[in-house]
Amino acid sequence: MIGVSGHVGYVWEALRHGADATVVALASGSVGEELAPLAAACRELGHQPVCFDDCERLLDACRLDGVVVAPWFGDHARIACAVLARGIPCFVEKPVALTLAELAAVQAAQARAQTMLMPMLGLRYDPAMFTAWQTIRAGAIGAVRLITAQKSYRLGTRPAFYQQRATYGGTIPWVGSHAIDWMLWLSGKQPRSVHASHSCQHNREHGAMESSALCHFVLEDEVLAGIALDYLRPSSAPSHGDDRVRVVGTDGILEVRNNRLYLLSDQAGGERELPLENPGRIFDDFLGAIRGERQPLCNHEDAFRVTQACLFARQSADEGRTVCW
Amino acid sequence: MIGVSGHVGYVWEALRHGADATVVALASGSVGEELAPLAAACRELGHQPVCFDDCERLLDACRLDGVVVAPWFGDHARIACAVLARGIPCFVEKPVALTLAELAAVQAAQARAQTMLMPMLGLRYDPAMFTAWQTIRAGAIGAVRLITAQKSYRLGTRPAFYQQRATYGGTIPWVGSHAIDWMLWLSGKQPRSVHASHSCQHNREHGAMESSALCHFVLEDEVLAGIALDYLRPSSAPSHGDDRVRVVGTDGILEVRNNRLYLLSDQAGGERELPLENPGRIFDDFLGAIRGERQPLCNHEDAFRVTQACLFARQSADEGRTVCW
Repeated sequence: MIGVSGHVGYVWEALRHGADATVVALASGSVGEELAPLAAACRELGHQPVCFDDCERLLDACRLDGVVVAPWFGDHARIACAVLARGIPCFVEKPVALTLAELAAVQAAQARAQTMLMPMLGLRYDPAMFTAWQTIRAGAIGAVRLITAQKSYRLGTRPAFYQQRATYGGTIPWVGSHAIDWMLWLSGKQPRSVHASHSCQHNREHGAMESSALCHFVLEDEVLAGIALDYLRPSSAPSHGDDRVRVVGTDGILEVRNNRLYLLSDQAGGERELPLENPGRIFDDFLGAIRGERQPLCNHEDAFRVTQACLFARQSADEGRTVCW
Repeated sequence: MIGVSGHVGYVWEALRHGADATVVALASGSVGEELAPLAAACRELGHQPVCFDDCERLLDACRLDGVVVAPWFGDHARIACAVLARGIPCFVEKPVALTLAELAAVQAAQARAQTMLMPMLGLRYDPAMFTAWQTIRAGAIGAVRLITAQKSYRLGTRPAFYQQRATYGGTIPWVGSHAIDWMLWLSGKQPRSVHASHSCQHNREHGAMESSALCHFVLEDEVLAGIALDYLRPSSAPSHGDDRVRVVGTDGILEVRNNRLYLLSDQAGGERELPLENPGRIFDDFLGAIRGERQPLCNHEDAFRVTQACLFARQSADEGRTVCW
């Protein structure tokens, strides 16, 4: 495991539930990352990893079946490239890169290695979201025409590296990547253009971190998608995040809200809540894919497409202009 | 009353509940509009209006305290100008114009006449929406930062004039005007730019009528607003429309959904539903304003601002470029 700043919880959760994997080595991924909490979490679960002070040394010293990459966000690409260069399957935090040049480097490294690169698009594994995808694929709402999605987060106390673009990357890539992934995944459409805006106003002393953002995507076949992001969810809210997506099709409307799924269609006889399917845990999916036992729910193509869409949207917001594919 | 194609129901509803007004004359507003249903509705309520075959003749022949203008949407501006030119208060369907040139003509006519021009922004009178506005004005969510709004309609059977841009005007002006009004009204902010898209695909043989649209507004102080519109609500839905608005502020989040109002804020101790205030009926507001008894909830400035924002958004969608104020 390299890095402690992303969703390493995906790993703990699977290990705690009996995933057949052993953490053999740890390293910080970014200068300034504290390794101690990660080492303590490993020991708590009965693992005795060797700790390295440099991730390249870790990669050279150990025989590994897979690497979890979750450093500061500006280090995803460099470390993913180092892992892929050694032909090791890589479970990497999204977005996999914070610049288009970094993205191209990761793409090239993956193409050379032909090794698995699986992004931490963990919200695909939310049962409501997963069932929404299944339901759309089964044709329950006809052709997708309009998508709106939302991520609204409590700000809480964020690590200092969130305050700088170079280490954080921006709220559109970090928070928005999930919603942008839903848009692409649920619609099955390629993006054509994006117009986005973001604002750092009222970010409560969080430097360059944007506290609100809005993205306007046009996908192929004139499918439209709007994505709203904020860190303004009050601390007294009943949950950390308020994730929502609404997909309007020619034959029905599907909506995820409060981790529940609602279908409105004539065929369903009006509005009803759907029972949810559970796709399992994302880290189990990674392990299963390493072992060749299954196709994971997200792969390198998803990682690249989502990252590119995030970076195009961020560029649009930074430059105040529409960015086209 | 001139025209039968807009929300003349606002008038019937008030008359049925005892509004002190008499319909003295009727005329079609557009070539092809059928006057008979309007005349029948008047007689049903005990009014005996004189029917004219030309609205200019009506305006010249009658002594009127006010005129209701609701013809095909491409005739709003011409008829509103004719009413204002005679110094008569005008209750006019929104948007008041379908082109910027028409809008300028109505603005000039109103400025010359200094007469009341009240737009049919009837959804301001929805108790949930009205209470949302009051709640924001009272400071319950702090500074507004991000707004998302939605209008989702059943298509049903639309009159033929909806199928042509010249008579219908477009889905952004017709359906979107309400949501664009909420955005401006609830935020109290001026618009700075708009980027919009719309699509006629899957409009079920409705010619040039757009069946989906998405608008991305940036308001002053980097307040962001996204508006999603569609005519794809299934016919088996529990209501004709699914109007929603969510306003994210620095101190709380306010949401209107299913004609109910929800506040989430630390000061409110989390999430709670708010009791609603009823502002009364829009046509009663018009009558009261004519009599000088009250300030109406919407006036000519709202009409002009909303119409301009609609036309800028439609232009953006038509031309595929951002339009700035």
